Amino acid sequence: MRRVSIFDSTLRDGAQGSGVTFSVEDKLKIVKILDQLGVECIEAGNPGSNPKDLEFFQRARQIPLRYAKLVAFGSTCRKGRRPEDDENLRSLVQAGTDFCTVFGKCWRFHVDCVLETTEEENLRMIRESCRYLKAHGKEVVFDAEHYFDGYKDDADFALRMAEAAVAGGAGMICLCDTNGGVFPEEAAEIVAETVSRLSVPVAVHFHDDCGMAVANSVVSVLKGASQVQGTFLGFGERCGNANLSAVIPNLQIKLGIDCIPQEKLAALTHTARELAAVSNLDLSANLPYVGENAFSHKAGMHADGVLKAPCSFEQVDPFLVGNSRRFPASEISGRAVILAKIKTIFPDAKIESREVQEVLERIKELERLGYQFEGADASFELLVRKLLAPFSPFFELLYYHIYTDFAAEKDCGASATVKVRVGGEIQLMAAEGNGPVNALDQALRKALEVFYPVLSHVKLTDYKVRVLDGKNATGSSVRVLITSTDGVRSFTTVGVSNDVVAASWKALEDSMEYLLLKTNGACGK
Amino acid sequence: MRRVSIFDSTLRDGAQGSGVTFSVEDKLKIVKILDQLGVECIEAGNPGSNPKDLEFFQRARQIPLRYAKLVAFGSTCRKGRRPEDDENLRSLVQAGTDFCTVFGKCWRFHVDCVLETTEEENLRMIRESCRYLKAHGKEVVFDAEHYFDGYKDDADFALRMAEAAVAGGAGMICLCDTNGGVFPEEAAEIVAETVSRLSVPVAVHFHDDCGMAVANSVVSVLKGASQVQGTFLGFGERCGNANLSAVIPNLQIKLGIDCIPQEKLAALTHTARELAAVSNLDLSANLPYVGENAFSHKAGMHADGVLKAPCSFEQVDPFLVGNSRRFPASEISGRAVILAKIKTIFPDAKIESREVQEVLERIKELERLGYQFEGADASFELLVRKLLAPFSPFFELLYYHIYTDFAAEKDCGASATVKVRVGGEIQLMAAEGNGPVNALDQALRKALEVFYPVLSHVKLTDYKVRVLDGKNATGSSVRVLITSTDGVRSFTTVGVSNDVVAASWKALEDSMEYLLLKTNGACGK
Repeated sequence: MRRVSIFDSTLRDGAQGSGVTFSVEDKLKIVKILDQLGVECIEAGNPGSNPKDLEFFQRARQIPLRYAKLVAFGSTCRKGRRPEDDENLRSLVQAGTDFCTVFGKCWRFHVDCVLETTEEENLRMIRESCRYLKAHGKEVVFDAEHYFDGYKDDADFALRMAEAAVAGGAGMICLCDTNGGVFPEEAAEIVAETVSRLSVPVAVHFHDDCGMAVANSVVSVLKGASQVQGTFLGFGERCGNANLSAVIPNLQIKLGIDCIPQEKLAALTHTARELAAVSNLDLSANLPYVGENAFSHKAGMHADGVLKAPCSFEQVDPFLVGNSRRFPASEISGRAVILAKIKTIFPDAKIESREVQEVLERIKELERLGYQFEGADASFELLVRKLLAPFSPFFELLYYHIYTDFAAEKDCGASATVKVRVGGEIQLMAAEGNGPVNALDQALRKALEVFYPVLSHVKLTDYKVRVLDGKNATGSSVRVLITSTDGVRSFTTVGVSNDVVAASWKALEDSMEYLLLKTNGACGK
Repeated sequence: MRRVSIFDSTLRDGAQGSGVTFSVEDKLKIVKILDQLGVECIEAGNPGSNPKDLEFFQRARQIPLRYAKLVAFGSTCRKGRRPEDDENLRSLVQAGTDFCTVFGKCWRFHVDCVLETTEEENLRMIRESCRYLKAHGKEVVFDAEHYFDGYKDDADFALRMAEAAVAGGAGMICLCDTNGGVFPEEAAEIVAETVSRLSVPVAVHFHDDCGMAVANSVVSVLKGASQVQGTFLGFGERCGNANLSAVIPNLQIKLGIDCIPQEKLAALTHTARELAAVSNLDLSANLPYVGENAFSHKAGMHADGVLKAPCSFEQVDPFLVGNSRRFPASEISGRAVILAKIKTIFPDAKIESREVQEVLERIKELERLGYQFEGADASFELLVRKLLAPFSPFFELLYYHIYTDFAAEKDCGASATVKVRVGGEIQLMAAEGNGPVNALDQALRKALEVFYPVLSHVKLTDYKVRVLDGKNATGSSVRVLITSTDGVRSFTTVGVSNDVVAASWKALEDSMEYLLLKTNGACGK
């Protein structure tokens, strides 16, 4: 079976998309998610232009990766400078990755008008930069910037630049459609010709400015490209990069060309949701294969057809990519998927049982309110345990009062009072915080630690707020995700309300309960 | 110059997309918007399956259309039934349009297993349905459902079905990729062969399940298709239809094939925004050509290149499609970008001036705190105006107090008290809300409306919260973005704090100030 390598640039080109920002923690999480999917290369940052990226690479080196190799990205040395004197290239070496991508100009217009140098100097910059990195033990991918535009302008010029990189030791040449203006027939022709001319494998990198990045990637593979660069959700400069969540199943399911381990295909949809959650961005419902609507049949005639024979209105089976069929009109969604999740907690659960039906009903109801249990496994497990097994609560909230205060020439702040009952005892506790949620969190923790000292080890490590329906503005529903750790395990809980404090409370409550369940067993005091 | 006809199905296939619903009023507005753009055909409904559509067609007939023809959509007669006895076909006639689309099966598997009839009967249904509509004076487009899948299974079978429609009087055959699974090379081959075999013009209709609908449409035109069916924003069943807002400029700007009147091209972006507004859906920022980010240059090196020569990182000039270049101020972008943005407000600003240096310093400082001005142009403009021109504030906050309350068996809620000074006058106002932010918003608005009645027209239309560094969890910094409208303009403001209420306050304050600045001029009371 033919194989194509998948190169994800969510953390580099993706981060160049408007509205996309990642903290170092986010980046580490995304590396793990992509590795778990079996992606081969993860381009993770540009240490020369962003000093935060060096810190990231230092930490990333400590993550054990099963499938993926980390790649650092940067430009060739500047004109008139030797590679060893160029801080960009030096920081590429310092990043400590086995692989580097280095980009250089391949369009005469850019060499003349943007770089303002000669062809000879540009050739030197490309050749010597690759050689320098190679001499430092790196595997080098040369990103041939504007390759397609440059080729259309002067094919031999573009090819000479690519050949200079090969001469310098680059092990792969990536043909970049930097401006995103290439059409499939052009892509096919230029890739075929370039593959036949170069002595090393060829990769492709398309942008979506004409809405054709996925198509261009696929036709390029059919013409001999060995690697597709893109971003898993299509994030990237301007209209974004080739969306790998569509490229991978197009190649692997439709054309039989291996991209990721076969058993990982069914994780595509889950991976898309995890990545969107970490990025705090909406996953577009219409995304091919992994979108919520990708297998949603709204027209009655289509729904009838699919119930008779799924392939009558589905190009592939949704289960292959871990997605599920939806019939929005008739509300028959995703039961098999939820049952499979329930079985990870109670292996004997049966779809026919009344209790399991109750769980399904309850989840559907919560989803209508805006809950989403993808990325909130602890809340899901709690919900299932509460409905399928005896559960007595560890604590009960009687009330909270929060006072938030601001006055000119004074710091703003908040204080919270929380009253809880644990077993027969009542505890009233107060605390201050930066804002109402932080104050509530502190007060609850102080109150519960009296009864459950184990909670003193718990730390909240992440807090995310997502507004669900912006139309009601400050009165909109919000979904809060809280990630906690007790030093051993890390888990995420969810709450929804049209009050950010109440939504946070629900997620906080779940996080305390989940930890107590895991350390104290199924019953409270 | 070659011409291709554009056929928009937003109101029919688009309405089959999840989350898309149109009232009759919405549909009438969309017809006018598409006609104004110069689209040739508007498929506006399925009167046989949706009785509301008959009412719509009656009203739509009264709209004077300059460019567009309305098209009614329906299926062939049922098996065993004559066209004149089939209520679907009768309602197509009743719709009163000059054009009708009638769809029929072209894949043997569907004829056998979904329709459960014979080839002969299917041929009859197609032929007689077309003939019936033709006899009633209609121009008939035959939608060859599943044409590509049917052709791949048995090319002669699919062609026989299309020829039956031609024999019945259809003036155009539309080849439909109903399941959205076709790849560009297949599309090219099948369209070329079909065009050469049929005696009438061929249209194409692609779905985006592989992310290739736009590419397939373009390659089909290059192989002889005379019409592209799609939806202007890509709405449609499952992953949607071919997105015409990308197809049109791809054909007209890049390939020189006329689709709409040349002078209408610059209305593409505005049309996209109007359509999204009527549909009450977000316009995806990454849409090719018409998205907010389509010409947005975030990486410093790209921004520098575009400032030297736009075509260095733009495949077409944004002004051709009525869009504009953006340099989102961000950690990746350089000083040149920020200066270019300042110049849109103060054209004479110079990089050397002390005031401009101050703005740059202030922006860098705010970005370190977590501010991000991309997507918050109103806050950016306010900041620049405050630093570069005399500005006296419209109001001053003396204090706010917010009380948030929850008790068992009682709804949670919040109340806020706000004290502001405007000129020499003090106003104290209180309000309740869903949560602390909503209560604060209500109270502030009530207090300021006393002085500035114009604020009663302001509505907040979107509210977004992003946690910047989850590590401190509920004590983390948050960035709040608020979008407001006064019915005419829409603008976004930003606030950052480690208290969600204080961050919201800053964004709220900016939104009020920005609107007052725009309506009252540069000075407050």
